[in-house]
Amino acid sequence: MKSSLILRLTMPKGPRIFNCVKTTLADAGAELESTSVVTSQGKTITRDLTVKIDDDKRAGMEEAVNALDGINIRHVSDAVELAHLGGKLQVSGKRPITNLADLAISYTPGVAKVCKAIAADPEKAHNLTIKRNTVAVVSDGSRVLALGNIGPYAAMPVMEGKAQLFRQFGGVDAFPICLDTQDPEEIIRTVKLIAPAFGGINLEDIASPECYEIERRLQAELDIPVLHDDQHGTAIAVLAATINAVKLVRKHMSKLKIVASGVGAAGLACSKMLLAAGVKNLIGFNKGGAVYAGREGLSSEEQWLAANSNPHGFKGTMQEALVDADMFLGLSVPGVIKAEDLKPMRRDPIVFALANPVPEVDPEAAAKYARVIATGGSNFPNQINNALVFPGLFRGALDCRVRQITEEMKLAAARALADVIKPADRDDDHIIPNVFDTKVAAAVAGAVVKVAIDRGLARRIPKG
Amino acid sequence: MKSSLILRLTMPKGPRIFNCVKTTLADAGAELESTSVVTSQGKTITRDLTVKIDDDKRAGMEEAVNALDGINIRHVSDAVELAHLGGKLQVSGKRPITNLADLAISYTPGVAKVCKAIAADPEKAHNLTIKRNTVAVVSDGSRVLALGNIGPYAAMPVMEGKAQLFRQFGGVDAFPICLDTQDPEEIIRTVKLIAPAFGGINLEDIASPECYEIERRLQAELDIPVLHDDQHGTAIAVLAATINAVKLVRKHMSKLKIVASGVGAAGLACSKMLLAAGVKNLIGFNKGGAVYAGREGLSSEEQWLAANSNPHGFKGTMQEALVDADMFLGLSVPGVIKAEDLKPMRRDPIVFALANPVPEVDPEAAAKYARVIATGGSNFPNQINNALVFPGLFRGALDCRVRQITEEMKLAAARALADVIKPADRDDDHIIPNVFDTKVAAAVAGAVVKVAIDRGLARRIPKG
Repeated sequence: MKSSLILRLTMPKGPRIFNCVKTTLADAGAELESTSVVTSQGKTITRDLTVKIDDDKRAGMEEAVNALDGINIRHVSDAVELAHLGGKLQVSGKRPITNLADLAISYTPGVAKVCKAIAADPEKAHNLTIKRNTVAVVSDGSRVLALGNIGPYAAMPVMEGKAQLFRQFGGVDAFPICLDTQDPEEIIRTVKLIAPAFGGINLEDIASPECYEIERRLQAELDIPVLHDDQHGTAIAVLAATINAVKLVRKHMSKLKIVASGVGAAGLACSKMLLAAGVKNLIGFNKGGAVYAGREGLSSEEQWLAANSNPHGFKGTMQEALVDADMFLGLSVPGVIKAEDLKPMRRDPIVFALANPVPEVDPEAAAKYARVIATGGSNFPNQINNALVFPGLFRGALDCRVRQITEEMKLAAARALADVIKPADRDDDHIIPNVFDTKVAAAVAGAVVKVAIDRGLARRIPKG
Repeated sequence: MKSSLILRLTMPKGPRIFNCVKTTLADAGAELESTSVVTSQGKTITRDLTVKIDDDKRAGMEEAVNALDGINIRHVSDAVELAHLGGKLQVSGKRPITNLADLAISYTPGVAKVCKAIAADPEKAHNLTIKRNTVAVVSDGSRVLALGNIGPYAAMPVMEGKAQLFRQFGGVDAFPICLDTQDPEEIIRTVKLIAPAFGGINLEDIASPECYEIERRLQAELDIPVLHDDQHGTAIAVLAATINAVKLVRKHMSKLKIVASGVGAAGLACSKMLLAAGVKNLIGFNKGGAVYAGREGLSSEEQWLAANSNPHGFKGTMQEALVDADMFLGLSVPGVIKAEDLKPMRRDPIVFALANPVPEVDPEAAAKYARVIATGGSNFPNQINNALVFPGLFRGALDCRVRQITEEMKLAAARALADVIKPADRDDDHIIPNVFDTKVAAAVAGAVVKVAIDRGLARRIPKG
């Protein structure tokens, strides 16, 4: 991977020596992006040089620069780390408190009236506190990105980033809660105990199978929506992209044959959602092979999948399953298939290779066989990104104050997300909207609100 | 108590009928503060009228207005409740995410590098996450203001207000955590589990005696500062005001006789702090009378006080104790003494009547006997307000990343707070700074940082 580094160098003034630095950097494989002067004193100048360089060439570059006569590396900072200094979130008052009158409203004695109103009618907490617009992003750090079990401290930057996206795309106030335990009962109990401040709970990066029980119990025991985004955010985005891909190739959900590599939390949720959307012939694969009814050693979730998919009881290899398949859905690990394995698929193959950052199959190689390709990264077209889903999903749930985000709401959200792309704009490289498309969150939220109202589940009817 | 109400009225157009409304409001005891037109359609106009009125006259006013011919009250809203709609806090990103490059830094794939750095060295969480500047304001709602045990939902507006003040006065990001339990072990466990995101814990409005054990255990078991503000914030502000009052009347701490009414969490903490600052003759009173060594039925905290104060074993009434006393310190309930009880005090009596919103003794009546008077409210001079303390205290603690806020830091903070008032500006009505004085938080924070550095307790040396 490449990094942006900022080198702070002290050097004698003059163009000759600076040119020498530039040459040394270029020779070491560093791309000079910008320079600025920090201080200039007498014959010495201190400069910041921003360079882009492969991580494995960094040490060599530093050595080469330090070896230059009169040049001194004062400090090397990583641009990504610098952007994280002090964290990425801030908490502030909506209104400033600039005089005693403001203070008497926000704090004592005025606030006592608001406290009393909520004590008399706890439902008022939804209106008179931040509960109305605030979601907890809860993780135990047990399965963070592709990094695995890195714990609650190291998980924080991801949860902070998620909270930023909640605000930016959904106008939701989100706060990261990283729990210093990986015991499901403790996680459940802790989330219940901190729930009063929150209008929704976004579970994040919690390993399976613990994530299933944690989500199920919290949904049953809390009266605010609880959603494990790794499962359902991904599933909604995948279904939306599938809807558009299937339209593009003029096929039907009910007649698709889908090979699903990976039946972990995300893979299983995607499979469930595709089945709910009408898919019948889906064959899931875990490390041990195809998931079929009667196979030994399946988890209870895999048993559910076996009973509700793979209608012909296919027991062969993934390569064999791909023969005449319409779609490959990967939510597993890099390299489970080769591009050539896609060759025997039916016409206009759809390939979602969502392992991140390295997909199940190289998208460029796959392009030889597949018509529509999607990945989890932004370096290829068709990025399947949860950020398309969770801000709007919780926006809608908060706006109509539902107790739960139902299966019907999720299906509606997926369809609304697919529909953000107009038929005329739909093409092989455009089956899912860009995360910066401002129509996305509104469309997803609107779909949730509509189902909530139609089904009598809205505890509040949002204005216009 | 008076409230500001906003009446939304529909009425026929024309000045005659509007004048009639005004007269009716005035007759009902309402003071009209402002009016605005909401809509005007045909012969009908809808207006918002802001009025100030005693709470007990509100029903009569609404009845009188409704009885007017053609006038219709559409809605009555309370100005304080309106200011709380949707809560008082917002969470947002420090930097906007406006393109894929921003996203790749704040979220995947860039964020993975920051996660890995913290996983390799958890101490980096202090630099690379919001932990550096974020405090949890934790309450179980068991003793909120003078309202008592109103629970976690009703406590939220106070904790949100507190978080606003943290930001406004201390530049601290604070987030309210209201816990749906009042079991000390559960509170301790929960705070420990959510601690990774936070650089400090401000315990708030938790009843005694539970608050003592919760604070003690969390201080021992967490490596970030934990402080029950009702105890120590109050104590620091009281000591600061006492320092200035004592200078004003030219007495000495060591020779004061103080009568302390109320030895609950706040009263006890104030007594401890005054003793630590050199006071010797302090007599505490609980509901059962004077606290003296050997008295039956004292709590362990009261036994500590008995052993460390009241050196002459005084056992009489509060009125008797006030004879020749220099200072009355009330942190109890309204009406425990009459103004006349202050008469036999020694020259230049100091009276801190801090029960809020109604003080132990009416300050106007007390003025006949006392020279220096302080209360907990803003309607008299010398408001003893925790908001003078907690923002700066945690600002300093976060800046130098101490594990604990020590007794020495608290004493230094109190002295620094007292010193914000220059000797020439000190007078009977000015023994404690105004909460909006921008020098306050910096002075308190600076005192904490100085002690931390002097004692080798700073895990980080703040810049400049």
